[in-house]
Amino acid sequence: MTVSFTTTHRDAATAARAGELSTPHGVVRTPAFMPVGTGGTVKGIAAWELERLAPEIVLANTYHLLLRPGVERVERLGGLHRLLAWNGPVLTDSGGYQVFSLGARRRIDDDGVTFQSHIDGSHHRLTPESVVDVQSRFGVDVAMVLDECLSFPAESGHARASMLRSVCWAERGLQRAECLRASDEPWPGGLFAIQQGALDGQLRAECSARLCDKPFDGFAVGGLAVGEPREQLYDAVTEFTPMLPDDRPRYLMGVGYPEDILHAVACGVDLFDCVLPTRSARTGKVFTSCGELVIKNARFADDTEPLDPACDCPTCLRYSRGALRHLFMSREATSVVLLTVHNLAYFLSLMRTAREAIMASRYTRFRAHVESARADGEGIPAVAGEGDPT
Amino acid sequence: MTVSFTTTHRDAATAARAGELSTPHGVVRTPAFMPVGTGGTVKGIAAWELERLAPEIVLANTYHLLLRPGVERVERLGGLHRLLAWNGPVLTDSGGYQVFSLGARRRIDDDGVTFQSHIDGSHHRLTPESVVDVQSRFGVDVAMVLDECLSFPAESGHARASMLRSVCWAERGLQRAECLRASDEPWPGGLFAIQQGALDGQLRAECSARLCDKPFDGFAVGGLAVGEPREQLYDAVTEFTPMLPDDRPRYLMGVGYPEDILHAVACGVDLFDCVLPTRSARTGKVFTSCGELVIKNARFADDTEPLDPACDCPTCLRYSRGALRHLFMSREATSVVLLTVHNLAYFLSLMRTAREAIMASRYTRFRAHVESARADGEGIPAVAGEGDPT
Repeated sequence: MTVSFTTTHRDAATAARAGELSTPHGVVRTPAFMPVGTGGTVKGIAAWELERLAPEIVLANTYHLLLRPGVERVERLGGLHRLLAWNGPVLTDSGGYQVFSLGARRRIDDDGVTFQSHIDGSHHRLTPESVVDVQSRFGVDVAMVLDECLSFPAESGHARASMLRSVCWAERGLQRAECLRASDEPWPGGLFAIQQGALDGQLRAECSARLCDKPFDGFAVGGLAVGEPREQLYDAVTEFTPMLPDDRPRYLMGVGYPEDILHAVACGVDLFDCVLPTRSARTGKVFTSCGELVIKNARFADDTEPLDPACDCPTCLRYSRGALRHLFMSREATSVVLLTVHNLAYFLSLMRTAREAIMASRYTRFRAHVESARADGEGIPAVAGEGDPT
Repeated sequence: MTVSFTTTHRDAATAARAGELSTPHGVVRTPAFMPVGTGGTVKGIAAWELERLAPEIVLANTYHLLLRPGVERVERLGGLHRLLAWNGPVLTDSGGYQVFSLGARRRIDDDGVTFQSHIDGSHHRLTPESVVDVQSRFGVDVAMVLDECLSFPAESGHARASMLRSVCWAERGLQRAECLRASDEPWPGGLFAIQQGALDGQLRAECSARLCDKPFDGFAVGGLAVGEPREQLYDAVTEFTPMLPDDRPRYLMGVGYPEDILHAVACGVDLFDCVLPTRSARTGKVFTSCGELVIKNARFADDTEPLDPACDCPTCLRYSRGALRHLFMSREATSVVLLTVHNLAYFLSLMRTAREAIMASRYTRFRAHVESARADGEGIPAVAGEGDPT
């Protein structure tokens, strides 16, 4: 197995843990945040800029890449790593989450899902096998199984059938992955299963039990941050995370705000991805150690301080809030670059310091310190989930 | 005088020269290309990215900065260098060129020009004195005088009156600059005059004669690349450049394509600015040693070569044409960053190699070599000038 995971440190007071996820393109020290490189790039920044921010793994979206440029073209251009111009570990989702969010433009059956492209209306089909094929052809380090992601609130009769379907698809995906690994040109990547079951603890437990004895390389908690109240997200993470095996990496999909991440780390989650730092940059929202800032706010117009005086990212070393506000108000593309760099630096630094705290067994103090400093800011929304997933 | 110019080398066969322009923020080795940082940033790239491309001087537009964020705010934010996050030499235009291009939204009189903002319709006025004041308050290294820039073709009766007005304004600007230099907080920047006179050699000669005995720190050829046929641009540069003093820097405003620049260098021009590399990046046009490429062309879809195999910019070191086409077609902001970096690298590298050729007195061979390699590409337009100057 070319993807493996070791827990190297455990926090004394919480379930937080530090680990190392080995992949064909390198080791990811966990807990880790994955910047989102949706359709072949982390939006707005060059690969060398991303590299200087030193993430250890990047996420890309199968749905977007499948539609454009398409799997054959990704192959002809040398694989997904070449397309991203990024030589570190890459994880892709299966495309399921985006497809399910298409609403009327998709039709699900037991064998997979048929959908219309949001770009040109063309018809496509994903099956549990095809999404593994596609991700292996991309050459990714970690692939995700196809799952059915329900919106919030889920109708409970539907939630169990849907969970069972997701389990069945996960097993079919695993079989396909095992075929690919036994082929003449074995695919070296890992495959993660996804726990589903809406907000129902019994369904989540049943799903976990059905998946956990299978040789998946990791497990994700899926179907959260889809519009539920934030308190329910926290309770769910607390309850559902320990259902996943301790000896394999745990990935909380699509979450979230710094506070959400810190809570999940305390519950034993290892991997995160979220569009928040990159998408927020495009709307002028800035993450800092003192909470969020909205850069277009008039009070920053003459402000000569950096975005976050505690930050050593290149944006904070060079630009004042006033200059950034001017560039943002002038709709200069440069402002998106600068805010993206800062926001990613903030999330990545948060994960690095969280990891250090776990290694020193002082995670609870660390978390309290971060959260109390951030409480002065704008606060985070009462509802979890970042809306439009495409 | 804190701005000074020395010619260090002369090409044997042409009027091309290599020189050094000393400014308060450093020395500019000429001939030099100035990337355009219109409203406080070179569009799409962070200041540290710009720095790695190693231009030796950057241009910004007084018109844009005056409207947004305004001169008081630039001052409160620590001056134009702080706003740009760029600590090297900065040259600003006077705003005249942009104002004259506003057409019905501006009204000229002998004492200056009144105009309406293209952003919010607010009324503003520029005088020969105020533009020097504003540029000195920006803290620029080189300021330009207010001039009247005629569109092509100019009506000849009007051209002489307009030229005389520009000369008068230049003298008034110089008087103001001398006051500022004699003040308690002396402004250390230089002031360049602008030769006008449409395409009329006699008017250009008269204008030059009237300006040349004044202690300007440099002289520009203005009013070209405003829509005239390319052949007329070349003839004009050939004829008008030598009218300017040999002992001071010569700046050809707003020009242009690589071939235009190479011609002007041969005529003894030292400084250039143009939006071409940055604006073209936004429309997917790429400058290379083999001529221009249009990246959205379908023939690049599966192309694994870099934009320019002869280029060592970070974009060419990392990204294939196919990947760049995909990002451009997907409207990813990253593609603009990547193409901007490449295009600027191309122009800056062209100037560095031109300078080396002059120093080795082999400029003619160098120019023939560059032009013959580029002749395979898409070719350059028959009409000079890059349209919308705002």
